[in-house]
Amino acid sequence: MDVAATVGIVAQRDNERAHRLAATLVDDLEESFDVTVAVDELTGEAIDADGIPVDAMAGRDLVVSIGGDGTLLFVAREIGSTPLVGVNLGEVGFLNAVSPDDALEVVDDLVGTLVSGDDLEERELARLQATGEDADWTLEPALNEVLVHGPRRGPGGGVTVEVRVDGDRYAESHADGVLVSTPTGSSAYNLSEGGPLIRPSADALVVTQMAATDPLPPLVVDADATLTLSLSGPDVGYVISDGRNRQRLELPTTVSVSLADEPVTLVGPEPDFFEGLEKLG
Amino acid sequence: MDVAATVGIVAQRDNERAHRLAATLVDDLEESFDVTVAVDELTGEAIDADGIPVDAMAGRDLVVSIGGDGTLLFVAREIGSTPLVGVNLGEVGFLNAVSPDDALEVVDDLVGTLVSGDDLEERELARLQATGEDADWTLEPALNEVLVHGPRRGPGGGVTVEVRVDGDRYAESHADGVLVSTPTGSSAYNLSEGGPLIRPSADALVVTQMAATDPLPPLVVDADATLTLSLSGPDVGYVISDGRNRQRLELPTTVSVSLADEPVTLVGPEPDFFEGLEKLG
Amino acid sequence: MDVAATVGIVAQRDNERAHRLAATLVDDLEESFDVTVAVDELTGEAIDADGIPVDAMAGRDLVVSIGGDGTLLFVAREIGSTPLVGVNLGEVGFLNAVSPDDALEVVDDLVGTLVSGDDLEERELARLQATGEDADWTLEPALNEVLVHGPRRGPGGGVTVEVRVDGDRYAESHADGVLVSTPTGSSAYNLSEGGPLIRPSADALVVTQMAATDPLPPLVVDADATLTLSLSGPDVGYVISDGRNRQRLELPTTVSVSLADEPVTLVGPEPDFFEGLEKLG
Amino acid sequence: MDVAATVGIVAQRDNERAHRLAATLVDDLEESFDVTVAVDELTGEAIDADGIPVDAMAGRDLVVSIGGDGTLLFVAREIGSTPLVGVNLGEVGFLNAVSPDDALEVVDDLVGTLVSGDDLEERELARLQATGEDADWTLEPALNEVLVHGPRRGPGGGVTVEVRVDGDRYAESHADGVLVSTPTGSSAYNLSEGGPLIRPSADALVVTQMAATDPLPPLVVDADATLTLSLSGPDVGYVISDGRNRQRLELPTTVSVSLADEPVTLVGPEPDFFEGLEKLG
Repeated sequence: MDVAATVGIVAQRDNERAHRLAATLVDDLEESFDVTVAVDELTGEAIDADGIPVDAMAGRDLVVSIGGDGTLLFVAREIGSTPLVGVNLGEVGFLNAVSPDDALEVVDDLVGTLVSGDDLEERELARLQATGEDADWTLEPALNEVLVHGPRRGPGGGVTVEVRVDGDRYAESHADGVLVSTPTGSSAYNLSEGGPLIRPSADALVVTQMAATDPLPPLVVDADATLTLSLSGPDVGYVISDGRNRQRLELPTTVSVSLADEPVTLVGPEPDFFEGLEKLG
Repeated sequence: MDVAATVGIVAQRDNERAHRLAATLVDDLEESFDVTVAVDELTGEAIDADGIPVDAMAGRDLVVSIGGDGTLLFVAREIGSTPLVGVNLGEVGFLNAVSPDDALEVVDDLVGTLVSGDDLEERELARLQATGEDADWTLEPALNEVLVHGPRRGPGGGVTVEVRVDGDRYAESHADGVLVSTPTGSSAYNLSEGGPLIRPSADALVVTQMAATDPLPPLVVDADATLTLSLSGPDVGYVISDGRNRQRLELPTTVSVSLADEPVTLVGPEPDFFEGLEKLG
Repeated sequence: MDVAATVGIVAQRDNERAHRLAATLVDDLEESFDVTVAVDELTGEAIDADGIPVDAMAGRDLVVSIGGDGTLLFVAREIGSTPLVGVNLGEVGFLNAVSPDDALEVVDDLVGTLVSGDDLEERELARLQATGEDADWTLEPALNEVLVHGPRRGPGGGVTVEVRVDGDRYAESHADGVLVSTPTGSSAYNLSEGGPLIRPSADALVVTQMAATDPLPPLVVDADATLTLSLSGPDVGYVISDGRNRQRLELPTTVSVSLADEPVTLVGPEPDFFEGLEKLG
Repeated sequence: MDVAATVGIVAQRDNERAHRLAATLVDDLEESFDVTVAVDELTGEAIDADGIPVDAMAGRDLVVSIGGDGTLLFVAREIGSTPLVGVNLGEVGFLNAVSPDDALEVVDDLVGTLVSGDDLEERELARLQATGEDADWTLEPALNEVLVHGPRRGPGGGVTVEVRVDGDRYAESHADGVLVSTPTGSSAYNLSEGGPLIRPSADALVVTQMAATDPLPPLVVDADATLTLSLSGPDVGYVISDGRNRQRLELPTTVSVSLADEPVTLVGPEPDFFEGLEKLG
């Protein structure tokens, strides 16, 4: 006997193609299965359907993100460890493996599994959590990277950052900033700063300095390490998670970065890491 | 027969040791030669002497800068091509070769040459000039580098920059920014961004991308090339000269960078470029 | 009641200081404990004692290496997983943490533990094994890195190398060569080729291209991955383990690199990885 | 009145397409102009025509190279400053700008200019000359780079190289080797070793270390500098010009590198440097 399932669909903002695909998915799922499907509020307005806030999709059986890596990062932040599948719009990312043409079939498969009472095959993506001294603030967990930087970019805009790994001092230099990256994020901004790629199956993080005056090579550490970044020099600095969530810091201060308790849960076909690299060549 | 000479002395702000050295130089010069010596206003307050604005020292026979490379960069901007000698405070820079211990002897030598009617042996340091479209703005010339960047540092904060050399397209990439460096500046911020060193006697400039998504190697061009940097993507960007003089840009826009008409004129002993590199090793 | 223990001591070749320290250790151990101590043959000649081949020390309760990282790498190859402690000659390496001044005390402690019947606290260092197609050859396991290269260094001397990770293609480029490094080796030659540092506790390897025409960033993989390096282009290439053990290859051919079954077993105080980095700054 | 002209044509070895194009050019020139055309010996055999040694083409009015950059580098070495035009076989290089389709028209134009008594518009490409201590050997001049290296590639195979620029010490490190590159060569092997691009019009050379233990950034110097490379450590090293001409060195020894007296003289359309870069992106 079938089980009722709940599905959420989030489409990239202001993207008509994403909205049309969302509408098709809603129609198809409601026709084929005993499901409740909700779209996000903006998509709801666009396709004339009922919309709910994205964070209200937490706890659903499945959430579908339609758009680029940016859209998926945003959805992941809102829904915690709710199972998530990423549909791209033509450009394959490291996170959203499903092409628009395959979206219907893949989502049908996943919902079919759910309504027949079976479990989805899940894989976890690590996230990084940054917290301030005395835990006076906590950033949204980062799927890609946590980055600290000085007042601004370029000469004269940097900050002195001391990096400790589980308390041991690794590096101290004036720099534009320092970033801590997950395997997922290793192919993003970390790469532009000269950091290495990390295969998703490696249980590791990487620390990379940005434009350091006394540079050390990027450092790969085991995923359960705690990185402590002590900032000094100017009056103000910033810590930022996935290039979006930003916290202003009064210096000197210390930022702790370690794995978040709650990883992101992805379902559906896995993107091929090495295929994704080809666009880097 | 001796000629009267005019000398200006600028000491690093809020640095007592620099102030004391300035006072010693004033006393010594006035005792030994037929000279008029003026200090900058802040130093004047500190050592209880008559001070004049630094830009009023333009046209003097000699200006002495006491402090780090930053002080000398500042003085150079204010006095145009007035002969300038840089005295350091212990840490040798690429610009200010004279140690505090040698300051008295070196400055005595230079003023002695002037009052006996001889010419000082001058060497020129190239500067870069950045101008906006339709010449709607012009930055203070840069001894080190001109840098354009996006709204802020790090992922999501960059800008698309197309770089043209005398009209030919060299590179186009999303990046944190792009910098154009003189030989003097090649050992400064350019180095932190992976650019090469340029020997001062080479008649060349170097263009270096910062954290580019589609990076190209740094490019060395002849010193009389014109670099055109076209910025697009976000609404706002910045262009900055020597890490100090900053111009806000509304994007898309284009910044032209080329040699300034007026180089800086240095006198006195020449710093040893290769010795200065040792601190990099 | 005490247990008899067997100890081997290997001193750096042609190094009188190492020989003297070996002699002191022999005397001290034989005086203090119920032990059988043997030195290597060359040291035996130098200090007029009975020497045995280094590989005959395999199976002893403890082997002491006196010298640089090179000496320790050599001893490790000969004795398999026999417990090993490294004494340096003043320059701390990443492997041999014990200073000459502390050697007597540390070795006394270790032998004291052995004769009282307790177990030594051991830590394992991963080694890499390289094997040819159809297992027609196998290199000595590498503590630092396995490296394949073309007929010679520089332009025109390279080789095309395709790198696969567990069968998935990561990179293919003409290059001078490619290296696979352990965490121990990450701070050695890998660093000169632009690879990242890997903290010893991270369960990871790194693959780094050497002077590739179409380069990709260094890739960090989980330690249990199998790397397959397919070489083609010239008629001849080489595979080399720890810069010493070399196998000539007729191209095209394929080299497999993965963790060796038998790690090196180190005992005694652990070198501080981050302290060791300071000489890199 | 027309002037008789002499032309040499060299086609890439064992390349039938190059041979056919050579045959077409011979026929066309002999039909259209009062010229003497000779092909190289191997091409002569292939197309059943009279062939002469390539070095016997020195002094002709024009030499045509058909093939890749390698063929042109080879021809340039043999003919000194004889005017040279490079025809590619489809893949545009930095040296041979003429496509096979345009070859007939371009060569016709050049020979037409010659027989009407006008001068060809020439441009010069700098070459580097390497000489041993006491001038006991001299390498063929290099259009791309002169490179010194140790006994072999990789860890344990390097050499200590001290680099001096006009006598001043720039760097000293154990390394796999060091290379000195022309602007032409800056986009070749130099790039793989992390060196910068140099625009052809910049009057500069670049020195780049290969896998140095104590690395310094690549150094750009004025084209008339003399680089002195002092090699020590192992018993044997090598110096090599354009990846082909190789001299064995007994260490310790010193190699001098400076501009060769005789540059290569190119005629015909100039390759677009920045277009050529696109394949690097």
